[in-house]
Amino acid sequence: MALIPLSQHLADILASYLPAAHTTSVRRPFVTLTYAQSIDARISKREGERTIISHEETKTMTHYLRYHHDGILIGSGTALADDPGLNCRWRPTEDTDGFLEQSSPRPIILDVRGRWRYRGSKMERLHNLGRGKAPIVVTGGAPEICEPGVTYLSLHIDAHGRVSWSELFEKLRSEHQLESVMVEGGAEVLNALLQRPDLVDSLVITIGSKFLGAEGVAVAPAQEVNLVDVSWWHGISDSVLCSRLK
Amino acid sequence: MALIPLSQHLADILASYLPAAHTTSVRRPFVTLTYAQSIDARISKREGERTIISHEETKTMTHYLRYHHDGILIGSGTALADDPGLNCRWRPTEDTDGFLEQSSPRPIILDVRGRWRYRGSKMERLHNLGRGKAPIVVTGGAPEICEPGVTYLSLHIDAHGRVSWSELFEKLRSEHQLESVMVEGGAEVLNALLQRPDLVDSLVITIGSKFLGAEGVAVAPAQEVNLVDVSWWHGISDSVLCSRLK
Repeated sequence: MALIPLSQHLADILASYLPAAHTTSVRRPFVTLTYAQSIDARISKREGERTIISHEETKTMTHYLRYHHDGILIGSGTALADDPGLNCRWRPTEDTDGFLEQSSPRPIILDVRGRWRYRGSKMERLHNLGRGKAPIVVTGGAPEICEPGVTYLSLHIDAHGRVSWSELFEKLRSEHQLESVMVEGGAEVLNALLQRPDLVDSLVITIGSKFLGAEGVAVAPAQEVNLVDVSWWHGISDSVLCSRLK
Repeated sequence: MALIPLSQHLADILASYLPAAHTTSVRRPFVTLTYAQSIDARISKREGERTIISHEETKTMTHYLRYHHDGILIGSGTALADDPGLNCRWRPTEDTDGFLEQSSPRPIILDVRGRWRYRGSKMERLHNLGRGKAPIVVTGGAPEICEPGVTYLSLHIDAHGRVSWSELFEKLRSEHQLESVMVEGGAEVLNALLQRPDLVDSLVITIGSKFLGAEGVAVAPAQEVNLVDVSWWHGISDSVLCSRLK
């Protein structure tokens, strides 16, 4: 289904939160956290259940953001639950030819325990159709299974089975030439990165006008997080918060 | 401290969610749920800890809403934690004399287990200064202690120690002539009433641009809740959602 047009007012607000607006003097890429939540801060109704929260107009925004990033990172839990395409279906109106693969960000699946498979995924289907890129899979240590078409990035894991976020981002830039990465979920990944103002440059949150209920998967960082450079936009049924971590 | 002026745009949006805009053909008063939350849907940082979430401009809105309601209901947990005044400090600009007691809503404390005391409260202080009304305290069964100045409303409690919301609201109208009641918290009260489209007419939620963190007190109803007649407003740092329960 075609995307509806992007609101010009929303594009104007987003402008100062996009990678293009910034020069990063650090060794990592420009990092944007972006997700859609309900009023009660749930990103899905239940663990592993894909849930529509946002309106068509903020869905367009997601693809617009993907157009502006070199990479798009999600956790393997989200990859397994949603089987997302992670490609970009937005393009400037003058670009009618449309090279969907070229304008799509590179999918990055954080899959420390090697749970996710590319084969049979929507990502593979889109890539085979020339409508999306093949993924980088981030593993803890060497991957146990190597699938054709997948690029592996093996990182050390700590005593808690976690990789280092700074190492991950630095390698995505130095080894894979990704100058900007957007992070779309899931809750575990978002909760961790909301606590890392040293690593995150922009935050774009869509708030849909519904409650998903107490059993939903909540985004709430362990500690309080303050924001700066706050801008709000609202559309027909959603509100969008753009800001930076303090 | 004086309130800052109310945004005219916000007042225009609120107009169709106020009791004055409606005629209720039911036996209960017009009921508005209103509260301020963080992005991660927390209304306070920790159980029993009063937390500033909203900007001065949405604080003005709270007092504007109080001006438009006959009663203001909170749970005893919130009364004990916050010691709130619950009076109204907003008034139309032409009304320079200002009778704060007259324009303030009647506080209603839902205190089934008889935990809260009026004596020594900010509510008592404000009432003694002519700046707020004395409260109605809702008890489960007859109150064990009767404090001077307090009006008691004794209701039956069910096997779970809860009163009937419909009985409570009906009696607030029939016995206390309250034609409109706003409900400000806490989480337990809000979570229960978010599931009652038969009892709630309007919903006004302020979303402050910060995260309070996972240890905060969350508002999330037990089940999914859909909304209708959604309007958003945003100010300097907060967003306001006005709507009705579907």
